[in-house]
This record gives sequence, C-alpha cells and structure tokens, in this order.
Amino acid sequence: MEAEDQLIDRITKAVPSAAGGARLQGRLGPVVKMGIGDDAAIIVPRGASEWILTCDAFLEGVHFLRQLHPADSVGYKALARATSDIAAMGGLPRAFLLTLALPDALDGHWLDQFFAGMKRAARALGVQLVGGDTTKSPRVFISITVLGEAPRGRAVLRSGAHPGDVIYASGRLGRAQLGLELLRRGFAKSARRDRALRAALNQHLYPQIRVELGAWLVRRRIVSAMLDLSDGLSTDLPRLCRASGAGARIDSRRIPCAEIPARAAGKLRGLRLDPLQLALDGGEDYELLFTVPKPNAAKLRGAPGYPQLAAIGEITREQKVLLVDSAGRARPLPSRGWDPFRK
Amino acid sequence: MEAEDQLIDRITKAVPSAAGGARLQGRLGPVVKMGIGDDAAIIVPRGASEWILTCDAFLEGVHFLRQLHPADSVGYKALARATSDIAAMGGLPRAFLLTLALPDALDGHWLDQFFAGMKRAARALGVQLVGGDTTKSPRVFISITVLGEAPRGRAVLRSGAHPGDVIYASGRLGRAQLGLELLRRGFAKSARRDRALRAALNQHLYPQIRVELGAWLVRRRIVSAMLDLSDGLSTDLPRLCRASGAGARIDSRRIPCAEIPARAAGKLRGLRLDPLQLALDGGEDYELLFTVPKPNAAKLRGAPGYPQLAAIGEITREQKVLLVDSAGRARPLPSRGWDPFRK
Repeated sequence: MEAEDQLIDRITKAVPSAAGGARLQGRLGPVVKMGIGDDAAIIVPRGASEWILTCDAFLEGVHFLRQLHPADSVGYKALARATSDIAAMGGLPRAFLLTLALPDALDGHWLDQFFAGMKRAARALGVQLVGGDTTKSPRVFISITVLGEAPRGRAVLRSGAHPGDVIYASGRLGRAQLGLELLRRGFAKSARRDRALRAALNQHLYPQIRVELGAWLVRRRIVSAMLDLSDGLSTDLPRLCRASGAGARIDSRRIPCAEIPARAAGKLRGLRLDPLQLALDGGEDYELLFTVPKPNAAKLRGAPGYPQLAAIGEITREQKVLLVDSAGRARPLPSRGWDPFRK
Repeated sequence: MEAEDQLIDRITKAVPSAAGGARLQGRLGPVVKMGIGDDAAIIVPRGASEWILTCDAFLEGVHFLRQLHPADSVGYKALARATSDIAAMGGLPRAFLLTLALPDALDGHWLDQFFAGMKRAARALGVQLVGGDTTKSPRVFISITVLGEAPRGRAVLRSGAHPGDVIYASGRLGRAQLGLELLRRGFAKSARRDRALRAALNQHLYPQIRVELGAWLVRRRIVSAMLDLSDGLSTDLPRLCRASGAGARIDSRRIPCAEIPARAAGKLRGLRLDPLQLALDGGEDYELLFTVPKPNAAKLRGAPGYPQLAAIGEITREQKVLLVDSAGRARPLPSRGWDPFRK
C-alpha cells in the first residue's frame, strides 16, 4: 500500500466518510453515488433543492499555530469555519472535500487528534467526507470545500436587506477574539476554571456554527439578508450593507459582548481588553448576522437559541454604517476586522 | 477597499467568473444563481444529470518551483489537473472554486501571468470561477475544486472493468515526465526548437485534458472503466485493477511512448532517459486510461483523437498486473509512479 493510500485509509476510518456509494442524511437530500475511492465524487440531486458550494483555507502560521492550538481544535475548526458559510445562507451542510498538505515529520498523535476534532465537527454539522487530496508541505495546509442544500429559491443572500429591517446577531460577539487573546498570553489554563472565559476559549477553539438557526430562518422565510461574522462586525456589517445598497445604524448598548468577569479582570488587566472593541473588531465568532423586515420580528420567538438573539440596530437608506455610542451619539464605524492581507 | 477584496477583484477580472448570477454554458447545464460575492455559490440543478466533485492541491516546492516554472504554467496546470478528474469520469466540467494562498512579496507580474494561464485553461476546459478563498502564506498554495456534470447514471468509475476488456491509453505516455526532466536539467530552451521535445515540454507545462474524449465515451456508452493517468501507468493501472477486482496484462511493445529524437539524444545522453520507463513510471500525463468491452472496440473509430488511441493490453481474471517485455516474457509490473509521500 502506498503512503498516500495509507493516509487516505486513516482519514476515512477516523472521519464520517462516504466510501463508495452511501446515502447522505435527510430524507430528500442528495445521494452520494460515489464517495472516496474514485477520481471524483458523484452526487445525484433529488427533490427541488438548490446547492450551495463554498471553500475555506486553514493554514498553519496564518490561521493557527501548531505550538498554541491543540490538534483537535485545528481539525474541528477547519471544518466548522468552512461550513459556517453554508449556515450563513440558511443551507443544510451535506458533504465535504478535504485538501490536506502535511509535513513529513508530523507525528501520528497529532494526526489522530486532528481527525478526532474533525470527526466531532462532522457529526455536529451533519456532513460526510466524500473526497479530497493529500500531499506533503513544510507547514500544515488545509482547504475544505463544503456542499450544502437549501429548498430551491430559498438560500439567503447578503443583498436582500431593506431600509427599516431590523439587524440581529445570533449571540455574544468578540468571544472568539477574547479566547485567542487568552490563549496567546498564556491564560488558557486559568481561563478554563471560569465559565465565561471558558466559553470564550471554546468559541475560539471549537466555534459553534449556527446551522440549525440558519435553516430555521430559511424555512420560515423570516430573513431578508444574512452572513456569518467571520471577520468581525465592523467588517462584515458593511459588506452586508454594500451588497444590499443600504446603510446601517447600530447601537453599541445593544450589542451582546463577551463577558469578562470582574474577578478575572485583575489578571487580564495587562491585556486592556475592551468588550465593545472585541465585539466590533474581533474575528471568527461565526455568529449569524441577519436582517428581518419589521413585520417578521415577532415570528423570531420560536427560533432555535432565541434568548441569545439580539436586535442591534436597523438598516438605513443612507449608505453609511453608523455606531451609536453610550452617550447616544452616532459616528461612522471604522472597519477594523480581521483581514489576512492587511499589513 | 480591503487588500483581500482587491485581490478578489483582480481574479474575477482576469479569469472567466460568475459574479452574482450567470448562466453556465450548456443548454441543459446548471444555473449559477450566485457566483462570487456572497458567502457561497448557489447552483440550481436542471435536467437529469449527476454531479461530479473533485479537488486538487498544487503547491510551490512540491508540484512546481517558482524559479523553474513560468507563472502562466502554474495557473494553467493548477486548474487543468483538477479538471482532469472530471474528464476521467466522462463528465463535462462546469464551475470551479479557487483557494489561493500567496506570499506577501509576490510581484504583480507573476500574478498577472498566473491568472492569464488560469484564464486560458478555464476557456479551454469550459469552466467558470464561482467562488473561493484567499489568504497569505510563505509559499504559493493552490487548491481547486471542480464541479462537473454527466447525464444521470453515466459517470464512469474505475471499478467497471471485466476480464477480456481491452485497455486503451489516449496518447503518448511519459511526455510530461520527459518535459520535466528537460526543464530541470536546463534543456528547455533548446527543446523548444524540436517538435517532439516541445510537445513533451508543453505536456508538462500546459497539459491537454481529454474532456472531449471522456464525454464522447460516456455519451456512446462505450467504456467499462476509466481514470486519468496522473501518477504514472505503473501506479494508476493497478488502481483501476484493484477497484475492478481484476488484473491486467499489458504489452510494452504497444505502449505509446514519448519520442526522443536521435538528434537530441546526444545532448540528452547524460539523462539516461528510457522512453518505456518514462511511459510506465512518469507522472502527470493526464491521458485517459480506459477499458472497453471487446464488442465495443470497433465503435471507438469515431472518437475524438482516435488516431492517438492505443490498445495496450487486456483486463485479466487473475488479480496481477503483468508487463510483457520486448522478448515476449510477462513479468509483474512494479509500481514506481509519482507519490508525494514516498520517501
């Protein structure tokens, strides 16, 4: 058996996979006629659905550090963040392809943990591995393509927001950035003993993807536009506004921020962490940001995770993104979210 | 505008792209409802087709060298080799996603050439860019996902070969490996003056993908199994045999080899290039290897590129891959094709 075949064998045993033909979950979902093991995967559409395709890179040294991030977090997060784009359209994720480039010297334990994390994500997200490519590389390089499905005509774009629509965020913002800061500065161990800090750490290492909420919003036809917060509210909200040809006015007092317990604040004082700044500019929360026409707002009550949903502002006709501060003054919101290309 | 947005803008202007909604080619092909510019691409299936999904990595230092390979070859080949897996199933390639990780210091000329090569491949292969991801990386890293389409129930697997089926190769084998050797040893310039050597160089730098032949074979229902020769005949033929639960007996005298002109042989003598060895073990030819039940063999005459097709042997019941040498002796064929993980 070749070395590459051995790696593929290891992956398919570790991660939920469609080897050969296997039915994907969901009664009206597509059928995988061929999974791993041929030149490519074959998928047969069934029912009146549309398909959603996205890919996402996850690189050592850019998106994670091998010294800092546990291998199971790397495996989990690589798949979770790629799948978040499917959730952001209200789709149900079905299948994924994995491009994996690995250093020769990577030890078996790291790989086991990596695949265990990926397996956990695949189960939580309801996806199966149907193909991929493996090769070697001096650094770990991961690219994941996810195929999702939505009822035909229902996938939600960024471009459908109208003036007057209410802007919602699906949970506390800035937690993932806080988690990264804790990890980076060596506070991970003590953070695990505190509920709020543990939540922040977990949101950075094992982000929860809002698949259920996204699909629910689409089924009920409640939202006009949606995206996932990957680069921070101050970067992603302007994207939604630009796509919709509109502006927004959000209220800093209504943005749900990460909790930094007073007890922990002493320890963390040196970091000078401002919850609002983290919420505006912190990346990788993968919460959903969506807009709802006012008459639909009451229907949100039945949404999965409804108590966490926060109405943070409104779409405006004027094509500016304004932040209302604690004194009630509206000012333009500068985009300071995460951009790997910014110097 | 953010740096990442600028790069995306540059890509979509340079490469055939579906930005927003755009119809893919083919009267009954799928419709791209959303291309680049949202969280993900949305594709609406039409007609009774099945979909083929594959991804392929192309890395600096592993698959190409920035000092050795022209940037337009890198762009062309990254897309061509990924698309070859669609051709290998007889599918028509439709759309692709591009993951592109680039060093900060990469100059604009390199990128222009890279995208020009990718554009040439996209036009030749009939695919449109519908999405992707960009990031930075110390080395160029490319991963491409291609979506193809075949009439429902018709995509050809590796596993359908039966004893007695005739084994065909779609063109001269070993040319790409010869081209790589020429390039590596500094013979590229002089090779360009010779027709056969130029063909070898081109097959390495700008491989021709047999999309038309693959789709024709599927439309006519002629083949029982097929794959593309990416890792060399001695590695890929055993894969087809294993998948089909069969063996093969091929005749070294019937394998179409790369031409090494006598005139050039003097110059190349130091390289000790054996055309048969190149044909057996050389990678990246991307010719199709397919099996045809004997009663179908006569129907091949109308195939695109028919004069280049070569019947090189037969599928056998015994699960061994044998090579008949020039003296008529059959011996087991050792797998020595390209495997990035082999030490």
